[in-house]
Amino acid sequence: MKAGILGGGQLGRMLLQAAANYDVETYVLESDQHCPAAHLAHHFIKGNITDFNDVYAFGKRVDVLTIEIENVNIEALEQLEKEGVKIFPRPAALRIIKNKIYQKQFYQQHAIRTSEFVVIDSKEKISAFCEMFPAVLKLGEGGYDGRGVMMLDEKTNPADVFDAPCVLEKKVAIKHELACIVAVDEAMKTAAYPPVEMYFDPQLNLLDFQLCPSQLPDVIQAQAAALAVKTVAAFKSPGIFAVELFVDKDDNVWVNETAPRVHNSGHHTIEASYCSQFDMLWRIMLKLPLGNTDSIMPSALVNLTGSAGNAGIPVYEGLEKTFAMHNSFVHIYGKKQTKPGRKMGHITLLGNDIKALIKDAKNIKDSLNVVSKK
Amino acid sequence: MKAGILGGGQLGRMLLQAAANYDVETYVLESDQHCPAAHLAHHFIKGNITDFNDVYAFGKRVDVLTIEIENVNIEALEQLEKEGVKIFPRPAALRIIKNKIYQKQFYQQHAIRTSEFVVIDSKEKISAFCEMFPAVLKLGEGGYDGRGVMMLDEKTNPADVFDAPCVLEKKVAIKHELACIVAVDEAMKTAAYPPVEMYFDPQLNLLDFQLCPSQLPDVIQAQAAALAVKTVAAFKSPGIFAVELFVDKDDNVWVNETAPRVHNSGHHTIEASYCSQFDMLWRIMLKLPLGNTDSIMPSALVNLTGSAGNAGIPVYEGLEKTFAMHNSFVHIYGKKQTKPGRKMGHITLLGNDIKALIKDAKNIKDSLNVVSKK
Repeated sequence: MKAGILGGGQLGRMLLQAAANYDVETYVLESDQHCPAAHLAHHFIKGNITDFNDVYAFGKRVDVLTIEIENVNIEALEQLEKEGVKIFPRPAALRIIKNKIYQKQFYQQHAIRTSEFVVIDSKEKISAFCEMFPAVLKLGEGGYDGRGVMMLDEKTNPADVFDAPCVLEKKVAIKHELACIVAVDEAMKTAAYPPVEMYFDPQLNLLDFQLCPSQLPDVIQAQAAALAVKTVAAFKSPGIFAVELFVDKDDNVWVNETAPRVHNSGHHTIEASYCSQFDMLWRIMLKLPLGNTDSIMPSALVNLTGSAGNAGIPVYEGLEKTFAMHNSFVHIYGKKQTKPGRKMGHITLLGNDIKALIKDAKNIKDSLNVVSKK
Repeated sequence: MKAGILGGGQLGRMLLQAAANYDVETYVLESDQHCPAAHLAHHFIKGNITDFNDVYAFGKRVDVLTIEIENVNIEALEQLEKEGVKIFPRPAALRIIKNKIYQKQFYQQHAIRTSEFVVIDSKEKISAFCEMFPAVLKLGEGGYDGRGVMMLDEKTNPADVFDAPCVLEKKVAIKHELACIVAVDEAMKTAAYPPVEMYFDPQLNLLDFQLCPSQLPDVIQAQAAALAVKTVAAFKSPGIFAVELFVDKDDNVWVNETAPRVHNSGHHTIEASYCSQFDMLWRIMLKLPLGNTDSIMPSALVNLTGSAGNAGIPVYEGLEKTFAMHNSFVHIYGKKQTKPGRKMGHITLLGNDIKALIKDAKNIKDSLNVVSKK
């Protein structure tokens, strides 16, 4: 079996680490030959994942195809699907998800609880909806990696907002944030991982770490998992999906967004689950039975991001201390350049004592930094 | 840091899967460009690992060097070491271990309990030692992968034995077989994994599966681990070592052989230990702290070997059933050809119920086969 991945970042890297446990020949399409995944594939093809011809030609070389980023040429995927290439997720699902307007409308059509929203064609229209403030404005297409999202309130200058089709979402009064990875095989059988809970720095509103299992009451976790499965099932596509969820002050669970691929919120599954999200995707693509989503042990996950004010060749400060912990699993993505906020690696911590996990996660946040070489 | 591996088999493959968690640039030297490890390195160099020039030129490209097989050109490694390349294990230790005569003499010199033996120059000398029968005759150099070893008893035809320098070992009345992986860092600090116990098919005398922890009394396990650490420490070399041990009917522990590298008996550490043997070697080579050798959960390991009477393109029969188990971790090595007895993959099983683990391991032995494509 020949399998292709569109994109060569850390998600591709981890997919390819896992691929070496299977009888599969791997291909990566990516413009940067020094990307994190390039050297781990049997075949690295230099090309543009948003270009029809590059994606089409790449897809013709493989039996199955997956993505590690939504921003790919979907017309090429649709053509490849017609010609018999199996694509995970299906292009029809990707087309909905990669446009945030369509995604919100999809939730509405399927009675999936999501925040109130309006579709905005151009920035002149926004002033008509200022009663929705505070709100979140998201670009329909092209917003990735934190770009394409802005917060709007009474103080926002209407001249500063995106001037393109957008979705304007009323801000939910969020008490908790969860994420849930859901696997779907070709027979549409689903398997959900236990939801993880996101912990944010109250000052910076940045993700501090995530914990699995969530410490919320079982009933909320069950609602979250059920809503995630309902959401993913509605897309009618095999693959791995990550559903980001909000819990409001009344303990209602809302869907924020879905990603139709392996996801940062599932990295702990490499060590903390019987079947990792990456192994699960290989099982799905290679027509093997779905794996066991149970946790082996509770875990915390800390993202290692480029420090503010540092750009250039990365230096990992404090790694030794992290490696000296008895329960740390360090993943460095091998990126050639660090930038402020860039995802450079992650650390998973395993342990049965949740308080100790939280303490360890905070210790890592305090002691480990990615700076640039002086 | 640039790291090279001599050999591109499954051990190299698993080392490179683990390498993708570190900030390291990887190189593999191997004659077969379709070997299991070739596609997972940043740089694959086609060459002969037993050739001085190939190994020397390869070694000059890297900062640190390791092996996945003993049968490499040691003179080149010695020259590289003189020129500042760090080699794991040190060539001086490898020189002793790769010759089974020197290895036995080394145990004798260091008062490490091992079976009684004599050194044999040529086959004419064997008849003088027939009072040692039943005995094991091992080629000094060049015996790998089960080759170079033969059993001798009264019925052996003296014409059939190896005609080269050999070690003749009196057979120990073995009650149990254990193996223990020991890590040594550059400061000569050691860390031992819990010993694993080998279970053999009583009819075929083939390894059926291995179990961790061993079910032997704690005191014997402690003796085994202590003897393994003593043995490895005597080699005065950083690296990963696997010590194969016998337990006789009086519960004495003996050293059988040592391998100066990652080893089949440590494959369970990928999922069953906090720090796998592969991660441990990267930690040692990259000057990071030694990892935690504790087990996360008990485990069984089943080797997946080529079925008798089958040679050619491999087909994995019964894989689906193995993947459907809730606690199986399947590793297929991606070899292009199967042969009878060839190591084609392994399966690790995790679980707290030892009896269930043994039952699951036997089920896999019965249901999973590597045959050749018809």
